[in-house]
Amino acid sequence: MANYAFASDNTAGACPEAMEAILAANTGFTSGYATDEVTARAADLVRSLLDTDAEVRFVASGTAANAVSCAALCRPFEAVIAHEHAHICTDETGAPGFFGQGLGLIPLKGPSGKIDPEALQTALDQPDVSYRQSAAALSLTNATEYGTIYTVDAVRTLTRLAKSRGLAVHLDGARLANAAAAGFDVTAIKTLGVDILIVGGAKAGASMSEAIVLLNPSLSRRFDARLKQAGQLPSKGRFLSAPWIGLLESGAWIERSRHANAMARALGGLMPFPLRHRQEANALFVDMDDASLERLRAKGYFVYRFLDGSVRFMCSWATTPEAVEALGAALNAIA
Amino acid sequence: MANYAFASDNTAGACPEAMEAILAANTGFTSGYATDEVTARAADLVRSLLDTDAEVRFVASGTAANAVSCAALCRPFEAVIAHEHAHICTDETGAPGFFGQGLGLIPLKGPSGKIDPEALQTALDQPDVSYRQSAAALSLTNATEYGTIYTVDAVRTLTRLAKSRGLAVHLDGARLANAAAAGFDVTAIKTLGVDILIVGGAKAGASMSEAIVLLNPSLSRRFDARLKQAGQLPSKGRFLSAPWIGLLESGAWIERSRHANAMARALGGLMPFPLRHRQEANALFVDMDDASLERLRAKGYFVYRFLDGSVRFMCSWATTPEAVEALGAALNAIA
Amino acid sequence: MANYAFASDNTAGACPEAMEAILAANTGFTSGYATDEVTARAADLVRSLLDTDAEVRFVASGTAANAVSCAALCRPFEAVIAHEHAHICTDETGAPGFFGQGLGLIPLKGPSGKIDPEALQTALDQPDVSYRQSAAALSLTNATEYGTIYTVDAVRTLTRLAKSRGLAVHLDGARLANAAAAGFDVTAIKTLGVDILIVGGAKAGASMSEAIVLLNPSLSRRFDARLKQAGQLPSKGRFLSAPWIGLLESGAWIERSRHANAMARALGGLMPFPLRHRQEANALFVDMDDASLERLRAKGYFVYRFLDGSVRFMCSWATTPEAVEALGAALNAIA
Amino acid sequence: MANYAFASDNTAGACPEAMEAILAANTGFTSGYATDEVTARAADLVRSLLDTDAEVRFVASGTAANAVSCAALCRPFEAVIAHEHAHICTDETGAPGFFGQGLGLIPLKGPSGKIDPEALQTALDQPDVSYRQSAAALSLTNATEYGTIYTVDAVRTLTRLAKSRGLAVHLDGARLANAAAAGFDVTAIKTLGVDILIVGGAKAGASMSEAIVLLNPSLSRRFDARLKQAGQLPSKGRFLSAPWIGLLESGAWIERSRHANAMARALGGLMPFPLRHRQEANALFVDMDDASLERLRAKGYFVYRFLDGSVRFMCSWATTPEAVEALGAALNAIA
Repeated sequence: MANYAFASDNTAGACPEAMEAILAANTGFTSGYATDEVTARAADLVRSLLDTDAEVRFVASGTAANAVSCAALCRPFEAVIAHEHAHICTDETGAPGFFGQGLGLIPLKGPSGKIDPEALQTALDQPDVSYRQSAAALSLTNATEYGTIYTVDAVRTLTRLAKSRGLAVHLDGARLANAAAAGFDVTAIKTLGVDILIVGGAKAGASMSEAIVLLNPSLSRRFDARLKQAGQLPSKGRFLSAPWIGLLESGAWIERSRHANAMARALGGLMPFPLRHRQEANALFVDMDDASLERLRAKGYFVYRFLDGSVRFMCSWATTPEAVEALGAALNAIA
Repeated sequence: MANYAFASDNTAGACPEAMEAILAANTGFTSGYATDEVTARAADLVRSLLDTDAEVRFVASGTAANAVSCAALCRPFEAVIAHEHAHICTDETGAPGFFGQGLGLIPLKGPSGKIDPEALQTALDQPDVSYRQSAAALSLTNATEYGTIYTVDAVRTLTRLAKSRGLAVHLDGARLANAAAAGFDVTAIKTLGVDILIVGGAKAGASMSEAIVLLNPSLSRRFDARLKQAGQLPSKGRFLSAPWIGLLESGAWIERSRHANAMARALGGLMPFPLRHRQEANALFVDMDDASLERLRAKGYFVYRFLDGSVRFMCSWATTPEAVEALGAALNAIA
Repeated sequence: MANYAFASDNTAGACPEAMEAILAANTGFTSGYATDEVTARAADLVRSLLDTDAEVRFVASGTAANAVSCAALCRPFEAVIAHEHAHICTDETGAPGFFGQGLGLIPLKGPSGKIDPEALQTALDQPDVSYRQSAAALSLTNATEYGTIYTVDAVRTLTRLAKSRGLAVHLDGARLANAAAAGFDVTAIKTLGVDILIVGGAKAGASMSEAIVLLNPSLSRRFDARLKQAGQLPSKGRFLSAPWIGLLESGAWIERSRHANAMARALGGLMPFPLRHRQEANALFVDMDDASLERLRAKGYFVYRFLDGSVRFMCSWATTPEAVEALGAALNAIA
Repeated sequence: MANYAFASDNTAGACPEAMEAILAANTGFTSGYATDEVTARAADLVRSLLDTDAEVRFVASGTAANAVSCAALCRPFEAVIAHEHAHICTDETGAPGFFGQGLGLIPLKGPSGKIDPEALQTALDQPDVSYRQSAAALSLTNATEYGTIYTVDAVRTLTRLAKSRGLAVHLDGARLANAAAAGFDVTAIKTLGVDILIVGGAKAGASMSEAIVLLNPSLSRRFDARLKQAGQLPSKGRFLSAPWIGLLESGAWIERSRHANAMARALGGLMPFPLRHRQEANALFVDMDDASLERLRAKGYFVYRFLDGSVRFMCSWATTPEAVEALGAALNAIA
């Protein structure tokens, strides 16, 4: 069987803190559909993490979190500006368009997964014409798909441009924990003009759960109805919220992401192939020819060739130093 | 804090067998998006339960399961025939219309949650006109919303009528385990012309998971893309499938539902208020005036007044004989 | 061939004033997609008719006009309150749900096609719960489907109730000309809290065109993009707007509807069957058994048995006194 | 006022044959919603033109025709392959995604608006994965957006590739008349594997009307309900069908397009700027710097800079030799 340890940061299970919190929450009877006390406590913890009083909801997948958010920010005849390799553009089967009844995506280029401010300005300068879907929202991803980190100032530069044209802002934080572990101050998000923030749980060690944070309070009205209609308000809501109690009360959300980042750094130290992007979080992207990749796969490692042609190695809370050592040895053997 | 023990069969947590299976599955690295071996094994077990070789998928909520199914069976200018009090008609915030881009619902009356064959025939006899959404599917629910059970023959009578007019059939089995525990032969479903069956997990003791069974193989093509786009293909798929291993390998799926049904029967024996519907599964619906309901709530019990005006009491795998005794005493005290 | 003269008020062609205006507009080259001067002038005329400065657009069908409007006023997890026999509920193949991605309809009862204020109040008093589509808009129809007329005060009573709960208001004026001809002051609409008004063209003598009037200016932004995406911004826009110049400059819009109303009144004077609803506009609804209807159809007249079981006779700009005489004779012969 | 004569082939009005047929059809009472005899006759004429017995419907805009068609051929989690500059990709405000609830577009490159068979093959060779919208249909446009013509063999090459992978085929013939006038045999279309063909009316001299031809008979079921729900089944259907009687009985559909093509050829003979694409139909695309374009606009001519950076001149049935002369003189004065 193939070794998926470095294929993605979602091939790991749930970390002990998350799992223990699920077990602890699995007692007694509670009201349903996210009106329970476990969910209330988890939402409080997310608010504390971000130092905000925003509404918080928990959903079962990142695709759902992003698509519901885009649909909340745009009308069908409008569009979301995003990096061309953002998850919403490349890996979600058109979910924003499905949830948003055809809302468009305006993909922008930019190095290492980051939107270039000039490219954004150009997109914002497009005239509003009836035959095109004009932009109504900007979507950013931090950490990016290439494991790089926007600084708070870099986010602010982009959100300011967007806000000056009346756009809403969505921040996909599927790997926000990795960004935070790399120094991104998550308490600054509330000052950046972000309307909806997704705080990733699955990649940070949860079983399955992403937090939707409604920093713009005008979005809250009937949001539970929105989620229910979208199939994202399961009856036993505590199972989506409990892992957050484990992750946030213990500090595991950031500590285990720090570990993941460190593992990527360690792997970088052993890597015989040149890096395509700076290693700033829990990912490495390297230039590797097909023959080398074949040899690596022959050794049992399953990893992806990514959108930019590089080969991706992801670390997670579950990555061990031994596994990094072993992979490093395998890479050096086939390089 | 209110006592939610009898408010619904989804106020309980996950049963031990489900939780142990989750813990057992939470080891090592797996491929993502439901391509893992835990999911494969769970699907096998569902197939064994039903004695079929159909494709099986696992999703996070019953609303999602139903809505994705309706959308797979109808086009937007068509409609689903269902009992007027079916969950898809009354409790899912219009999710079938959202997932199906406006697909319609044709609600039928019928005693105790069951569709009357004559009412169905009348609906099927409506002419196909361009200004109305004509029926393309029939949706049945077993056990029904009123805790009654369709026999295999009763289902066959309805599905035959539907099939004779070219309709597809959806069977909402959110409480199929309770129906099975009451004698409904789930291995007969494959002979009944059902195209998509939902097998309920949450109400049978899972954390959160419902199984979609594609009995009509023509529906399988690109169904994973359908789920991914709908936000129902989470990366760590094992957490949706593992509980099924626990529930089905141990027999808990049916045994614990047998217990739930028995608890409802026991409560029926103590009930001072007249039953509105026959107790056949894990629910009791009784005639209770507002003043009595107020008194019951004052004793801490939260229960719902239902769509037909009766008051509903639900039992689950977690209902204890002691709790039934105590509720019985409370009811007799306030009657 | 059947005689469709009384089957509906859309079985007639375009009246001379409309057709002449189309011919007059069919000259030279214009910019496309409703940016032309014919369209500008027609919009001015609609504004004059209503004594308002609202934005006006022209679309090809009443179904499109209504559905685009409902979608502009509600989100998918919300609903439109309407009379149970309103056109949007019964005759548009679920178009509001299609354009609004599943938005719901909350049908209310009420005599002769009018919403009862108490029924509206009851609907407005429903609690906002996540599992139901809560009301976001009220839709009224004037003249109603049963040819009755809301007075300005009656509309105000209903819109005030709706507005007090934050609902938007849609007024379907497919037969607004008939209401106006019967005394409804269309210049009062701007004072009633209506957000979107549809002014009917087809039934008033246009070829095919309905005017969408955005009385709430916040709806204007990107409305052309909304229409373009919805397939309702044809390149040669002048053909949707020109008939309005003919209808409104000449006064035909109201004069010819006055004629239609008078024809219905005349037919009422000859009618041997009892009226089900008051004749106030251009429709008659009568109690007629199947055998009589059969005999009438045998005489070549095609008319509909309507939703409330009565048989409907519609008059239009093209109905002649002679045709009314002849129908009256036929009715008395078969009565 | 600007001169729009060469801005597009939809800036002209309706040609005399179309308008006379509208006038001729505007008599008496007919049944509604496209069940009338004018519509039946127009459909027969379209069938004769194409030598096919396919179902034919008439809608009010090309955007609607294309979007309804794409939605009929794909599910939301699938995609349409089209040239990157096809009208559905660039000029319809995302209508395919709106009508198809998020269906995707896969844009392909290719010279002068034509899809390159190798690019198509590469697209077809993409693996079917759950995280992407896989292709379910191929959309071709003839004449192309750049006024070039696919031969019958060129279409066949592309449709065969598509059909071999199970894709459906949509042919956008907004300018099919110009292609036919340039030698494309429209009676061959029925042999090419096209499932839905749009035959353009507006650009061929109609007021507003496009014909949808359902060459694949399995698409016919409930297609009128599809159109009604989409707002494309106006009550007075004869106004969408009558122009076809005028265009097709007289031969104007092709003769007037032959004239348009000839005018473009004549303009080409006078053109001082280099052509970017071959002139094969009624369009010229030329390389023109901004200063020259400014000078031309200063002379009153409104024309577009197109997607590929060239400047477009369109001729239509209404273009006169004198206007071509005058434009030629103007162009030579500013070159």
